[in-house]
Amino acid sequence: MTKNMGVYLGIDLGGTRIQAARFTPDGVREATESAPSEAQGNADKILDAINSAASQLVKNEALLGVGLGAAGLCDPERGRILSSPNIPALNGFDLKTRLQGLFGDTPILMMNDANAAALGEFHAGAGLGSSSMFLLTLGTGIGGGFVANGKILLGTAGFAAEAGHMSIQANGPLCRCGSRGCLEACVSGWAIVRDAEEIARNNPDSEIARLPSLTPLTLAKLARNGEPNARALWEKAGTMLGIGIANLMNLFNPECVVLVGGLGKAGSLLVDPARRTWENQVFGRAHQSTVVKMGTLGEWAGARGTIQPYLDS
Amino acid sequence: MTKNMGVYLGIDLGGTRIQAARFTPDGVREATESAPSEAQGNADKILDAINSAASQLVKNEALLGVGLGAAGLCDPERGRILSSPNIPALNGFDLKTRLQGLFGDTPILMMNDANAAALGEFHAGAGLGSSSMFLLTLGTGIGGGFVANGKILLGTAGFAAEAGHMSIQANGPLCRCGSRGCLEACVSGWAIVRDAEEIARNNPDSEIARLPSLTPLTLAKLARNGEPNARALWEKAGTMLGIGIANLMNLFNPECVVLVGGLGKAGSLLVDPARRTWENQVFGRAHQSTVVKMGTLGEWAGARGTIQPYLDS
Repeated sequence: MTKNMGVYLGIDLGGTRIQAARFTPDGVREATESAPSEAQGNADKILDAINSAASQLVKNEALLGVGLGAAGLCDPERGRILSSPNIPALNGFDLKTRLQGLFGDTPILMMNDANAAALGEFHAGAGLGSSSMFLLTLGTGIGGGFVANGKILLGTAGFAAEAGHMSIQANGPLCRCGSRGCLEACVSGWAIVRDAEEIARNNPDSEIARLPSLTPLTLAKLARNGEPNARALWEKAGTMLGIGIANLMNLFNPECVVLVGGLGKAGSLLVDPARRTWENQVFGRAHQSTVVKMGTLGEWAGARGTIQPYLDS
Repeated sequence: MTKNMGVYLGIDLGGTRIQAARFTPDGVREATESAPSEAQGNADKILDAINSAASQLVKNEALLGVGLGAAGLCDPERGRILSSPNIPALNGFDLKTRLQGLFGDTPILMMNDANAAALGEFHAGAGLGSSSMFLLTLGTGIGGGFVANGKILLGTAGFAAEAGHMSIQANGPLCRCGSRGCLEACVSGWAIVRDAEEIARNNPDSEIARLPSLTPLTLAKLARNGEPNARALWEKAGTMLGIGIANLMNLFNPECVVLVGGLGKAGSLLVDPARRTWENQVFGRAHQSTVVKMGTLGEWAGARGTIQPYLDS
């Protein structure tokens, strides 16, 4: 079969990096490329970055299919990025037609980046063997993807599983989406930095104010050193994350909740208060049937997930 | 085919009433029985109520199958009610074996009552023609059911779609489930009465305090007459409901959200503030793809839904 003679190319286009990988027809990752995504540039620069990564990865091999995951709301049928706060040049851009210019007749599939990560972890990572999984991407923002029976829940217009914009605090902090109390506005990279900046403003002599840069990583290091303000920041963020996870357990009752993304590097600073909260907060016996675990594919979950539809067909 | 020669019996066992109906093999409702469910009595009394309704509805007809929906967490495989706050006598009770004693060899299917209502509205009511639907039952408590591609999302242990226990207010009001800020603790029959009781305690001369009984219906009547405290109660409840509905749109992106249950009788008192809120709160374009509507089967949605699995097979 020709299916066994060639490769797939999976591309995860994020707000900062492009992570591309070549896969065997069985979905095994063979080679990777990582580069700046040029997401703040114009669309042509982004296409150049994609082309450059693809050229490095696929030379003489027969290219069976390309998968692309992109941050934002994606219309998979028309191949347009409807709204992408993190890659503004792609808002409304006809990415698929332009990609087709690069890849000729090769099939191209597009999906939301969180859905791609969910498919990747479900079929080749932490969700392997589960009947259903909710994936939470914990990064600068918060994304989600729900897989049941091997398929992503897309929703009627492709917008399902937007867990970052589930409100867990009526009249809570303002979110980037314009709403209030969203999970993302309570526990995300930008939300933690926002809270740290407030502490720094109000306490100019605090250790937080004296940090050379305020990032989740520097704040996690400070908390691990025992600094009480930083510890309280993570405690609060973890508690809110726990409420969000309990909600997902109550609403989806998945066999597992898988956490991926850079914020996970905070480790027990984030997960311990989250666990205490979801164990208290979850309804009845639902939590007894759901396991929470960390993803195992790291930054390659998305690229792997984008090619899954080819493997299913 | 024998499938066309006989009837189905659908039973919706609630905390107050039992609603039973006889259906044709095509799912058309032919006759109904409604009686107190004796839910506060012992299990034998509940079985008597079921038996009595069944005897009225099915006499000489060949009984092809029985469906039973019950409030609470239900283990459909073992036929046990795992936990039913509203029907305490059934907690851990082996209902299916006892029902089999009543109905002999006739197949019996059990499900959660909100899932039953969701299947009913999806296949024969407000959800007819939709690809996916989230149903919210707004009554003394709040339940939920999600249907996609004609099937209920059960979750890994049968506990999915427990929308009443989605927290929308961190550190919010205590819920009956022991958690805080659950949708049910903010907007349900019992939550509204709780808030009204507090107003009555704090303002003994208020119109609310002078009501002969505090129920959602008397409070809705008072609000319609323009009494400001009662209006504020519904405004607040509706706002919280709107946050909950926006969350469901963001998480499930269903083609429709269907509202059923007695609290819906408050009409625009509840739905107008809810609509204002979800239109503000929902993420991006998700709400443009979801319609919110009221159920059309009334108190018979559950009974109709319990027999749907027979029609599918």
